[in-house]
Amino acid sequence: MNIINGNVTSPKGFSAGGCNIGLKKDKKDMAVIVSEKMCTAAGCFTTNVVKAAPVMWDMEKVNNQIKGIVANSGNANACTGQQGIKDCEDTAARLAEHIGVKAENVLVCSTGVIGVNLDMDKILPGVDKTFSGISSDFAGGESASHAIMTTDTRPKTAAAEIEIGGKKVTVAGMAKGSGMINPNMATMLCFITTDCAIEKPLLDKALKGCVIDTFNMISVDGDTSTNDTVLVLANGMAENPVINTENDDYNKFVEALFYINKTLAVMCADDGEGATKLMEVNVTGCADEKSARLIAQSVTSSNLLKCALFGEDANWGRVLCAMGYSGGKFDPMGVTINFKSAKGEIKLMDNGTPIVFDEELAAKILSEHNIYIDILLNEGSAKATAWGCDLTYDYVKINGDYRS
Amino acid sequence: MNIINGNVTSPKGFSAGGCNIGLKKDKKDMAVIVSEKMCTAAGCFTTNVVKAAPVMWDMEKVNNQIKGIVANSGNANACTGQQGIKDCEDTAARLAEHIGVKAENVLVCSTGVIGVNLDMDKILPGVDKTFSGISSDFAGGESASHAIMTTDTRPKTAAAEIEIGGKKVTVAGMAKGSGMINPNMATMLCFITTDCAIEKPLLDKALKGCVIDTFNMISVDGDTSTNDTVLVLANGMAENPVINTENDDYNKFVEALFYINKTLAVMCADDGEGATKLMEVNVTGCADEKSARLIAQSVTSSNLLKCALFGEDANWGRVLCAMGYSGGKFDPMGVTINFKSAKGEIKLMDNGTPIVFDEELAAKILSEHNIYIDILLNEGSAKATAWGCDLTYDYVKINGDYRS
Repeated sequence: MNIINGNVTSPKGFSAGGCNIGLKKDKKDMAVIVSEKMCTAAGCFTTNVVKAAPVMWDMEKVNNQIKGIVANSGNANACTGQQGIKDCEDTAARLAEHIGVKAENVLVCSTGVIGVNLDMDKILPGVDKTFSGISSDFAGGESASHAIMTTDTRPKTAAAEIEIGGKKVTVAGMAKGSGMINPNMATMLCFITTDCAIEKPLLDKALKGCVIDTFNMISVDGDTSTNDTVLVLANGMAENPVINTENDDYNKFVEALFYINKTLAVMCADDGEGATKLMEVNVTGCADEKSARLIAQSVTSSNLLKCALFGEDANWGRVLCAMGYSGGKFDPMGVTINFKSAKGEIKLMDNGTPIVFDEELAAKILSEHNIYIDILLNEGSAKATAWGCDLTYDYVKINGDYRS
Repeated sequence: MNIINGNVTSPKGFSAGGCNIGLKKDKKDMAVIVSEKMCTAAGCFTTNVVKAAPVMWDMEKVNNQIKGIVANSGNANACTGQQGIKDCEDTAARLAEHIGVKAENVLVCSTGVIGVNLDMDKILPGVDKTFSGISSDFAGGESASHAIMTTDTRPKTAAAEIEIGGKKVTVAGMAKGSGMINPNMATMLCFITTDCAIEKPLLDKALKGCVIDTFNMISVDGDTSTNDTVLVLANGMAENPVINTENDDYNKFVEALFYINKTLAVMCADDGEGATKLMEVNVTGCADEKSARLIAQSVTSSNLLKCALFGEDANWGRVLCAMGYSGGKFDPMGVTINFKSAKGEIKLMDNGTPIVFDEELAAKILSEHNIYIDILLNEGSAKATAWGCDLTYDYVKINGDYRS
């Protein structure tokens, strides 16, 4: 696998673009992605009972052949009643007209404020305007990645190339997500494009397998949004032998897809609202995989630990406390906890016994941006990794007056 | 039931006191409660897998006859290995000597930093010192209520009188709890005393029934601590006919016990770390009680809503979002949401449809300290109430450098 400097337009046959259609004052607020050829598609969606209209639309349509995606920021089209569903369909129909397909061949995503109906007088002409500006070059993909941002401070893209049956296959993606991010997806949108030829059941399986260890393992604030969506479109234009079984080609594709998912997921955690630090929690030696996941997720989600991280305070007791209410199984008397960063490594608890540690070294380690918390258990071979960020004054500020 | 200005020394036969034993610089850090006669006792404890040593001690001993409680703040004696258990036993034994019972007749509680062994050179002489100062008057109870505080800004006490069989029965309590507070108990200690004569199985049942709707329904930060404990001691000195069945006398006692629990629980939420507002979430019309509880708890726990409350922003979409990931069952299309306070009431969503509302009135309502969020469903008659607070800069500040 070669990691390349690319985005959703890197795979063959994809065009994209983004522009301002007036939902936000100045910033880009609509993105469009179009494929030359019909795509096999797959999606993962929020587990929130309250699903935004576009999530309901996509959950059904993702099983059709797909040729385009239209996404807006600034308004989530969530909790918008029957009107929300209709607006979603009208938006899809508008892009469908331009690209010569039916509404059911277009997916729709929205992110932003909940509970306000879309201003369709801006959305529909906005689709025309955004579509007219799409391109298949690097700039087109970059433009689209800016248009899906809400409280994100920077766009998030990733791309990789693999070779399958002598053909170059490219997998690329873009994501947004900064707040309302919690295990089991985030207020997060992720769009992945690939020119790989792969059958639908395998694309579904590959995406689900990747999301469980990436987007489902990040937390910013413990709030699981109404709009979370990861979509992948595969148009087959790489002309590789179609992947129709779990062979080596499939494994290569999954490796690239996993890289894109993980890279974008970690970027989302790192760009958490107000965050000054990225935390990576590695749980090893766990009795079972479910417990490993629960423990890792719980630690990244603890407000108390997140505040301590912001304060660069090695309050490891909060790690053990968060493990304890995670729902994961483990013996507290067999826990070892290490904090580490580029500045060094320090053991804080050894086999259930607290260690008197060097506060100065701990402070030095915690002064870094990337903090690794290793949790070692003695109960088996299951492991899991989760990513989160610190809880800061700026998180409170950003969310104290989000609507205004 | 008469609500009175009292504390743990109000019921007959109880003495209490608190003093500084050197765990903290200046503030009181040890409390002792002693009953003249042996008590029937009951307790509710943290659900965290990581239980502090005193929790493990109390869970076993609470089924014995109890004559005293010793509690320290400043150190939680949690994650302290085998030494923690031994320290707990030695502390109980020291108070037991003074009051002529065995260690197993004394309960022990600790709250404060996790992962540091108790300084027994301070604890043991501290028990002597604190015991020597206890008294059965109002000041004794007040003193004890100060000594259990950590980040609390004020002591929390409540008392009530009822009449059973012509005898005056008093129920009183004190609590501490400000951070690491979440549904299923809090970093919270609560000590309830009563001179009621009541049999053990009924005291157990009464306490569990009260805690589920009070201390299990408050949230400050989503962190369930290692030390949460509610204890009730009943010494029978009111000389009422012993309550040994669920008759009217039992119901009267439960009413008073519920009042004490609820009053202290709401005080804990109101005094949440850094909090500027108290939020009460009332869910009605729910299909089942479990769902009602989950929904109410989830709304009070949402970081995003808590920030919005701090910013006095009527971002009701975050209420619906938190309902959606609560795990409770409901139809999003049948939800009505009202915000209210002493300044008025405003409907934000009506039967699943968002309402265009008066932002000025909403801001006026949210400018109050006590905010009520009413969630009305159309699915049954189950209901639940939960309490929480806002998430503020001060919460981050307090927890960014708690240990220093």
